[in-house]
Amino acid sequence: MVKLGVIGYGYWGPNIVRNFSAHEDCKVVAVCDTNPKALARVASRHAGVRVTVDVSEIVTSAEIDAVAIVTPVSYHYELARKALENGKHVFVEKPFTATAEQAARLVELAERQNLRIMVDHTFLFTGAVRKIKQLVDDGTLGPLYYYDSTRVNLGLFQHDVNVLWDLAPHDLSIMDYLIGLEPELVVATGTAHVNGLEDIAHLAVYFPNNVLAHINVNWLSPVKVRTTLVGGQKKMLVWNDLDPAEKVRVYDKGADLGTEQGIHKALVSYRTGDMWAPKIEELEALHLETRYFLDCIKSGIRPFNDGLAGLRVVRILEAAEQSLRQHKEIVLSQSRDGLPAAAASTFASNESCVQTL
Amino acid sequence: MVKLGVIGYGYWGPNIVRNFSAHEDCKVVAVCDTNPKALARVASRHAGVRVTVDVSEIVTSAEIDAVAIVTPVSYHYELARKALENGKHVFVEKPFTATAEQAARLVELAERQNLRIMVDHTFLFTGAVRKIKQLVDDGTLGPLYYYDSTRVNLGLFQHDVNVLWDLAPHDLSIMDYLIGLEPELVVATGTAHVNGLEDIAHLAVYFPNNVLAHINVNWLSPVKVRTTLVGGQKKMLVWNDLDPAEKVRVYDKGADLGTEQGIHKALVSYRTGDMWAPKIEELEALHLETRYFLDCIKSGIRPFNDGLAGLRVVRILEAAEQSLRQHKEIVLSQSRDGLPAAAASTFASNESCVQTL
Amino acid sequence: MVKLGVIGYGYWGPNIVRNFSAHEDCKVVAVCDTNPKALARVASRHAGVRVTVDVSEIVTSAEIDAVAIVTPVSYHYELARKALENGKHVFVEKPFTATAEQAARLVELAERQNLRIMVDHTFLFTGAVRKIKQLVDDGTLGPLYYYDSTRVNLGLFQHDVNVLWDLAPHDLSIMDYLIGLEPELVVATGTAHVNGLEDIAHLAVYFPNNVLAHINVNWLSPVKVRTTLVGGQKKMLVWNDLDPAEKVRVYDKGADLGTEQGIHKALVSYRTGDMWAPKIEELEALHLETRYFLDCIKSGIRPFNDGLAGLRVVRILEAAEQSLRQHKEIVLSQSRDGLPAAAASTFASNESCVQTL
Amino acid sequence: MVKLGVIGYGYWGPNIVRNFSAHEDCKVVAVCDTNPKALARVASRHAGVRVTVDVSEIVTSAEIDAVAIVTPVSYHYELARKALENGKHVFVEKPFTATAEQAARLVELAERQNLRIMVDHTFLFTGAVRKIKQLVDDGTLGPLYYYDSTRVNLGLFQHDVNVLWDLAPHDLSIMDYLIGLEPELVVATGTAHVNGLEDIAHLAVYFPNNVLAHINVNWLSPVKVRTTLVGGQKKMLVWNDLDPAEKVRVYDKGADLGTEQGIHKALVSYRTGDMWAPKIEELEALHLETRYFLDCIKSGIRPFNDGLAGLRVVRILEAAEQSLRQHKEIVLSQSRDGLPAAAASTFASNESCVQTL
Repeated sequence: MVKLGVIGYGYWGPNIVRNFSAHEDCKVVAVCDTNPKALARVASRHAGVRVTVDVSEIVTSAEIDAVAIVTPVSYHYELARKALENGKHVFVEKPFTATAEQAARLVELAERQNLRIMVDHTFLFTGAVRKIKQLVDDGTLGPLYYYDSTRVNLGLFQHDVNVLWDLAPHDLSIMDYLIGLEPELVVATGTAHVNGLEDIAHLAVYFPNNVLAHINVNWLSPVKVRTTLVGGQKKMLVWNDLDPAEKVRVYDKGADLGTEQGIHKALVSYRTGDMWAPKIEELEALHLETRYFLDCIKSGIRPFNDGLAGLRVVRILEAAEQSLRQHKEIVLSQSRDGLPAAAASTFASNESCVQTL
Repeated sequence: MVKLGVIGYGYWGPNIVRNFSAHEDCKVVAVCDTNPKALARVASRHAGVRVTVDVSEIVTSAEIDAVAIVTPVSYHYELARKALENGKHVFVEKPFTATAEQAARLVELAERQNLRIMVDHTFLFTGAVRKIKQLVDDGTLGPLYYYDSTRVNLGLFQHDVNVLWDLAPHDLSIMDYLIGLEPELVVATGTAHVNGLEDIAHLAVYFPNNVLAHINVNWLSPVKVRTTLVGGQKKMLVWNDLDPAEKVRVYDKGADLGTEQGIHKALVSYRTGDMWAPKIEELEALHLETRYFLDCIKSGIRPFNDGLAGLRVVRILEAAEQSLRQHKEIVLSQSRDGLPAAAASTFASNESCVQTL
Repeated sequence: MVKLGVIGYGYWGPNIVRNFSAHEDCKVVAVCDTNPKALARVASRHAGVRVTVDVSEIVTSAEIDAVAIVTPVSYHYELARKALENGKHVFVEKPFTATAEQAARLVELAERQNLRIMVDHTFLFTGAVRKIKQLVDDGTLGPLYYYDSTRVNLGLFQHDVNVLWDLAPHDLSIMDYLIGLEPELVVATGTAHVNGLEDIAHLAVYFPNNVLAHINVNWLSPVKVRTTLVGGQKKMLVWNDLDPAEKVRVYDKGADLGTEQGIHKALVSYRTGDMWAPKIEELEALHLETRYFLDCIKSGIRPFNDGLAGLRVVRILEAAEQSLRQHKEIVLSQSRDGLPAAAASTFASNESCVQTL
Repeated sequence: MVKLGVIGYGYWGPNIVRNFSAHEDCKVVAVCDTNPKALARVASRHAGVRVTVDVSEIVTSAEIDAVAIVTPVSYHYELARKALENGKHVFVEKPFTATAEQAARLVELAERQNLRIMVDHTFLFTGAVRKIKQLVDDGTLGPLYYYDSTRVNLGLFQHDVNVLWDLAPHDLSIMDYLIGLEPELVVATGTAHVNGLEDIAHLAVYFPNNVLAHINVNWLSPVKVRTTLVGGQKKMLVWNDLDPAEKVRVYDKGADLGTEQGIHKALVSYRTGDMWAPKIEELEALHLETRYFLDCIKSGIRPFNDGLAGLRVVRILEAAEQSLRQHKEIVLSQSRDGLPAAAASTFASNESCVQTL
């Protein structure tokens, strides 16, 4: 039985408590929030769960094995650090931390304490992303060319982070999961119109082998769009997360350079065939993810969405913000200096974990 | 009666000949192409039009008043220069020229010769863009926030220009037309996968007043998308050029900063109301544009899509390509040094012309 | 304080209990179901609500003012009758009863007892239908021409009623609400493929003034469709209930007979203008409807979705089934013989109630 | 070389002339129309084609082998009869004739004269319908359950035929082609609102084995819809003819009756899997169809879209109109009395012809 404490019961916290509570080998023992109304909601929905306004009752409790941190990002580092120092596994909302340095420290601390960190990159557990990951890994798409995502809607404006920190972590974690390469260069553009924080931003991330990721986030769009193109040498796909029926469409389309080339021009040949929309599992992503967290705690396996995965996302966010402010590109390999050794083995142990899911 | 010579009868040339021929005060007297099959097609469709493989028969002909140049961009400058030097008005395909310097020279030459240049930014004459222009100019959208366009599909790969020079001129000319401000900074990203020319590119153009334009072009998309978001302080719109019925949708949506601000956060208030899809004129854009060219020749009015408009587009393409190659931002105000004086009055005379359309 | 008993806690019952419970002037005192698991769910969600397997504890309880009947249709009549005889107001699921005769008897009984009946035609309380009703009533659409609805999907097959009784009541109640005329003729077609009950059916209902309603229901469609066209002389609209953003689109389109007519043909002139998607209220329909039921009980006003409204729907279902089986049209005016006098004043008192909503 | 005369050069005639002219073994020798402007258009587009206002110059010309009749339906019978009597093969617009009796006479006459009749059911030659036919014939869909088509838009009002005769022939010919069974019963509903001719109609056609076809046609729809559902026991498909990219989508969905049945209910089990959009050929349908007509003339093979196919469509139109007027179902087996013997072998020879296409 994993005994869990939850910090934060605002927008997302109720989903965390509900999903962890649904697993028979997990017990949510306490929830902390500074808002009495939130605590009253906990009490009415979950009889027997202790409520408190004091985080130390969670992070230092002898009874608690693991802590879920569901607060604004500015609190993540301090809370996670205390929880780890007190020997607790940690489940943290995305983005993992406010800086890459904080993330690296937490990764190192968890390593030293032999504790698990899981960053709540929920999208990685959706049927759509799991299907796309499978199509990438089994070679259906061929070598990847690009990942291009549009994630726009009207609001909800945050008052502490800009649109990049709010919306891009979703795509950065998915991109990291699918591409599995070290990014080399980040270029971001954007502007602020309403409250001084960027509400529109575009982010390009260059990878080796000419793989390019591009993310378009916007709080000022009149329509909601959640569409991602993933292009490979053999096939390409469109993931429309708002399509209730066919979220992922795989196209047998491509362009290849002909083997014979003229003097003045290279002959590009096109391929266009069937489209196929695989059936997508509809299990709740957070149910799978919380199950996986409990399993990782029990088995001692490091989750693929661990602190390093969280760190990789935060590094790009940090670089992107720098790029945005300074109107220049940011080379990532250099910004890695000073990170702990642990961060070097980033992609080492992912493969096996994915299989166990 | 305007007597026209046409150079180039490939993909677009037939539309140019057909549309100019349809005006009663215009006569296409000669068509030049190096491909005998193309000339045979001219002969079968347009009895009485002279065909030739020799451009000098067009550009030096005493009979001809104006020349339409419908060739690959690398020929534009030389052909336009000769036509202008021989006293002919010029109608040129987009992009205007291969370099901004060439464009500036042609603008200066036309000015000196008192001749008209029109760059074929056809989209400016579509019902959709004309409606959007009206909604911007009459204040319906309020001060503009952003222009964000996605123009992607599979191929057609060009062998002489990359996807930026192929697809972005459409959006650059529309953006220039709608925003009417001098761009300050260009940032472009992209990669090549198939034939050594960039097949994916993203382009951000910063304008004064936090106006930001962003253009996403891609030859490797499995689906065709032609969607542009235009956001203003009062209203926002979506232009989906592939929607046969409602190309332009105007949303009564917005976000404003509340007048009262708390200590810790600025309160953003949202507005969400009706959507409205105005009826869009379905006249063929090229019919209107060729009519306008004839009128400008007759009246001596400088068209709003003149050589300077073409120059503005080419300057950004040039800067974007530089940004793409060097992985750095390009400040535009400096790159303007050395341009002719004429280029300084870029936006001076647009207003009245728009009215006459 | 209205004290409510609820019979049936299967698929829809939980929504009924939750919504009535949310009103401060209503208390759900008891829930009856024959399934112990259902009763356990009631207990865990709604502390203090009595649970029972015996309906008489509901319908004869001195404590209870009103009964909500959320069972299969075959039980509606007996349960409603007992509740009314015991002096309780009644809220009944759609379809109201299994036969028009049963419906008429309940109407008469309620009239005699001066009790309210409300039939749960939930769709009438959605933002979309309320907006359409407003556009009909304020003359925006002009005199109605037709109502044409497609309501198809894969399953869920019922084992006691065919697709007509399962899906058509939604449209029949909406059609009745919008058109407000007595139907004259019913023609239905359809077939059974899987379990002996019709899984595909089409229903045409003729009204005076050439108003025609048509309903297409299908349990064997690979895609879910919920689209209704409503055509009027002045404007027409499309209601797509699956569109999350713009459920109702009003088109300024029409066709009129020109005033001048030739000898051989009448000249039809077309009108095509803007499209407009009004903002639709997103309040939960069942919240509004349960509020309205409580208000009708308190004020003594007869709801517009009363027993007569339920009777009108059942009459058409009955006629449609007869038409389907006998492959012939059913004239409705005759089938009305024998109905109670109350049924004659069907449309008399609707107007004012609509206003109070 | 087949020498062709064409009667009628209005909306569709130009396509007929253009397509026949494109085949090297066909020569359009003369075109007849009563409108001098139409004849002027022929002359300008097709040098060397004789034009005339006198149909007898076409139907009695010794030079002409085959006649294409592209006139309003009321002229079809007389013109086809004269052409056949003069030994000419006949290509006739849909609907074949104004009455089934006329159709039967023409079929008999052609049989006697050993001449070919082809009815221009163009849709049968589209890539979409050919793909669907293949999916039906190769058993992919399993035994058919239903064909359900919506074909609605605003106008174009005809002044001589109602919406049924205008739009339904498309679906009736496709339905006939796909289902390949003798229809048993026809039920039609509809009304007229604008010019006295029905502008809305719904048509159900019952076939053996519980196969049901339903067609919804409407000249008063604010939106254009061209969507057909085809349901089979194994798979179901949606054909959206307005989708430029994926016209046909095949769904691995179904519902089957479980083998074990309870006392009170039959257990229906559902199947839901991938969706698949096969690549659709984009060749112009009329190009294929005119090619096929020439081949049938040369080889003496009776086309599958022959006079009998045209007759089958007209019989249903006739029955549907009768049903519409009399508000009653029409049994088709009886209405067949009096048709020529030829009509009895309706479906005999289709199979082989389909293969040759």
